Amino acid sequence: MERTNAIHEGKAKIIYATTDPNQVIMYFKDEATARNGEKRGTIQDKGIINNKISTYFFKLLKDRGIPNHYLGTPEPRDMLVKKIEMIPLEVVVRNIFAGSLAARFGKEEGTPLSMPIVEFYFKCDELNDPLINRYHAIALNIARLDELNEIEHLAFSINAILKEILNAKNVDLVDFKTEFGRDENGKIMLGDEISPDNCRFWDKDSKRKLDKDVFRHDLGSPEEAYQEMLRRLTE
Amino acid sequence: MERTNAIHEGKAKIIYATTDPNQVIMYFKDEATARNGEKRGTIQDKGIINNKISTYFFKLLKDRGIPNHYLGTPEPRDMLVKKIEMIPLEVVVRNIFAGSLAARFGKEEGTPLSMPIVEFYFKCDELNDPLINRYHAIALNIARLDELNEIEHLAFSINAILKEILNAKNVDLVDFKTEFGRDENGKIMLGDEISPDNCRFWDKDSKRKLDKDVFRHDLGSPEEAYQEMLRRLTE
Repeated sequence: MERTNAIHEGKAKIIYATTDPNQVIMYFKDEATARNGEKRGTIQDKGIINNKISTYFFKLLKDRGIPNHYLGTPEPRDMLVKKIEMIPLEVVVRNIFAGSLAARFGKEEGTPLSMPIVEFYFKCDELNDPLINRYHAIALNIARLDELNEIEHLAFSINAILKEILNAKNVDLVDFKTEFGRDENGKIMLGDEISPDNCRFWDKDSKRKLDKDVFRHDLGSPEEAYQEMLRRLTE
Repeated sequence: MERTNAIHEGKAKIIYATTDPNQVIMYFKDEATARNGEKRGTIQDKGIINNKISTYFFKLLKDRGIPNHYLGTPEPRDMLVKKIEMIPLEVVVRNIFAGSLAARFGKEEGTPLSMPIVEFYFKCDELNDPLINRYHAIALNIARLDELNEIEHLAFSINAILKEILNAKNVDLVDFKTEFGRDENGKIMLGDEISPDNCRFWDKDSKRKLDKDVFRHDLGSPEEAYQEMLRRLTE
């Protein structure tokens, strides 16, 4: 199995075809963007760190029964994954008010939610990834009702597993973004990555941010934040 | 039973207490606003027309088994209603892309939806009435899950009934906004009004607008549009 041509380039990853039509490679880049591409920069070794962190989480989730696309980590920046048909939804799970949710409801960042919540955003740059509800998703042919139910169920399960793991690392899981896809039998599985690029991780005591908000809001060295997060998970 | 002091003044109505603590009067004003108060004006006799149209729809919905607050129409601008605890949600049902939905998804106004959809907006002027999903509503203590299920069920039923009635009047029901409340036993019932102020009504053939969009977008005489809508329903 070898990497062949690039089939898609996103903001943080390049997807390559392989000699196996059922497998693709996700190549993790160091480039970082924020506010839908308005702010751009590089976080040194981010690609390597995110691949490691994502490998850690996807293996763990597979062990815990969460179906996902992970197959292996052949190179520091390459993750081998099952080729699945991605559903154009950003599925966000939140435990604590932060970012756009805090702004949307005029709440102070750090206010705990009374229960975890799931949000669907329609992944569409031209529309600025709008928040949608399940009826929009069905009417726009993004996914069927039974698929949305399964996605919500998986999202809440993933949240419970990650919270438990991170709790032991003295990290609050504030929120995270996932993406899902359909395998060749139409089964829903977790795709994309789970890394400081799309999660909010806060040190439990100091509330220090260990994620991309350090880059977004110029709060110090993103490299140190990402390295610290990797250290906590793997040491 | 007599009208006593004003207890709330909204953009289009004043709510008065009455000598019966379980009943209030909704007084329909002629004032019209659009874009959250940015555009202001008066539509002559709107209060009288909306009270008549709303009376027509609420009586009809009661006959069809939809619990609602309607009790009577003692004066041309007064509707007597049951006092209920209003839930701060704007519950929008849509059959055709128009207004904010068309803008949100880059669709042409008039494009039919493949199925009716329900949307919840958190009624909060300071936050600009944001679109929310059911998890937001529960986490923000706006309503419980069983209440949201009942509200969605009622909203779809109301849509089916109104569509059938309006079809016979050669009118397309594009979308409409409703509000719900809890009676003294916690039962969910339809409140507020159903009128050209919060529905989009289009003539089936010409697609002429018979609703507040005529005022919002300066498309001619809103008085004529409201009168025409009343004529279609009552003649």
